[in-house]
Amino acid sequence: MSVLIVGSIALDNIKTQTEERMGLLGGSASFASLAASFFAHTRLVGIVGTDFPAEHIELFKSRGIDLKGLQIVEGKTFSWSGEYEWDMNNRRTLSVSLNVFESFRPEIPSEWRTTPFVLLANIHPSLQHHVLDQIEQPRFVVADTMDLWIETARTELERLLQRVDLLILNDSEARQLINQTSLIRAGRLIRKMGPKFVVVKKGEHGALLFGEEEFFSCGAYPLEDIHDPTGAGDCFAGGLIGSLAGAGVGTVHFAHLRKAVVHGSVIASFNVESFSVERLRHLTTIEIAKRFERLKHMAMIEAKELASR
Amino acid sequence: MSVLIVGSIALDNIKTQTEERMGLLGGSASFASLAASFFAHTRLVGIVGTDFPAEHIELFKSRGIDLKGLQIVEGKTFSWSGEYEWDMNNRRTLSVSLNVFESFRPEIPSEWRTTPFVLLANIHPSLQHHVLDQIEQPRFVVADTMDLWIETARTELERLLQRVDLLILNDSEARQLINQTSLIRAGRLIRKMGPKFVVVKKGEHGALLFGEEEFFSCGAYPLEDIHDPTGAGDCFAGGLIGSLAGAGVGTVHFAHLRKAVVHGSVIASFNVESFSVERLRHLTTIEIAKRFERLKHMAMIEAKELASR
Repeated sequence: MSVLIVGSIALDNIKTQTEERMGLLGGSASFASLAASFFAHTRLVGIVGTDFPAEHIELFKSRGIDLKGLQIVEGKTFSWSGEYEWDMNNRRTLSVSLNVFESFRPEIPSEWRTTPFVLLANIHPSLQHHVLDQIEQPRFVVADTMDLWIETARTELERLLQRVDLLILNDSEARQLINQTSLIRAGRLIRKMGPKFVVVKKGEHGALLFGEEEFFSCGAYPLEDIHDPTGAGDCFAGGLIGSLAGAGVGTVHFAHLRKAVVHGSVIASFNVESFSVERLRHLTTIEIAKRFERLKHMAMIEAKELASR
Repeated sequence: MSVLIVGSIALDNIKTQTEERMGLLGGSASFASLAASFFAHTRLVGIVGTDFPAEHIELFKSRGIDLKGLQIVEGKTFSWSGEYEWDMNNRRTLSVSLNVFESFRPEIPSEWRTTPFVLLANIHPSLQHHVLDQIEQPRFVVADTMDLWIETARTELERLLQRVDLLILNDSEARQLINQTSLIRAGRLIRKMGPKFVVVKKGEHGALLFGEEEFFSCGAYPLEDIHDPTGAGDCFAGGLIGSLAGAGVGTVHFAHLRKAVVHGSVIASFNVESFSVERLRHLTTIEIAKRFERLKHMAMIEAKELASR
């Protein structure tokens, strides 16, 4: 089944403590749609300027991503510059140039309005609402958000929570949204604000999935080196919704979401191994399946290792 | 099979942001031996003063803990006072009075020197060495440690690592010991310092177990409220070694350690629900088994939930 993804498309300038790269493909919709494309047919809605490199368009196409919803308008593409500290959990935004993104009004092509799986990747909640207003009876809607919207657009965000099935946010955002230090309590309370399910991402510590009565704790894939954490959360969201759509389920149950969270974690773990989307460019479904199996084994409490001894 | 546990026994004064309690049973060996006693026959080596309340002795006895190695000497019991911030991950030591603990030389009763499972709970590495010098061919030795010893007794600690099978330490201690921000790299590098296995505890984020080629990520049991985190790490270590001894395995394999890490996590999760050892006092093996099963279910990536739908 198909996935519709709406979000930002950017050209990123990334500085780590060892390297600096300019003009990289970035933005929440870029990462998310590439991630989703490994599991399901993916439809991308976004906006870029006429300066947007053709090679990025080609990359999307090479992954079979449908670009009918991509607006290419006169002007420059949204640009973000950021710097990571030695501890890559900490980053600073150096500059943001909205450019053509400032006038973005996501328009969903009419034949896409019945797409069953929808990811509202990280953009302003009012744009996320605008997308939902155009969708007819979606089967499952996932929304991502960020600290900026919790701070500056709380009312629209709270209203959005009543329209989505799953909210994804990171640990500090969860604490911020609900003003609680306990992530367990935060996850449960956010569910009461609307979404049936909540995922709290914890970076190197994995992710927590909250359902009505169920709870799933997913460890992160163990990586010694992280080259560029940019887009990890977007890849997680994209891999998650792609996994659900790929499974083609009629009603999304908790067990589907467990697998989808792991698929999201797997894609995110590949993505941070290289700058921008470089790792995704050559990623294979066999590599994904292998890492999925390894994560499954790593989480096993009663493993079968002994059987063979 | 039996477990030998050597560590501190203390009277704690604990202040949280909501409560304050004086003269509570504390110390690494107290928590660890009570935790271990749920799984295996437990032998305790430690020192207390003549002021040590008889009710604490009775508690140990009621759990079947053998106290032949407990020295009761003229003077006052080791005392620790600490305060927790709102975020209970942060605590401050307000005062420490070593008292009789200052002259502690752990003496292992001769009939205990062949105990197969040994836990060197958190005490000075030179005392941990002194214990190992008295033990004959232990099957499996676990050592716990803390930031203070990494800072002030590094040489003795490094020498100890070559004599133990498993080192347990928390995330900040792992980073401190090896001077690495990546916990994955830290865990792997600490293994190269001697111990066959390493556990990195991450509090609310669970624990990581490192073996030669294997890796296990254990989520923490989800608790909304924590009343007193004191002793959680000691309970984890005690539950872990108790689980190994209880299983009575000849050679400890990675699969045994997976279960043992979960047992440790389960006992620790109960312990933080009340002050001091109060929760352990009335804990039952049925409660332990239930929480073990719940953690197993929470970690499942491919759960059987769908089968019944």
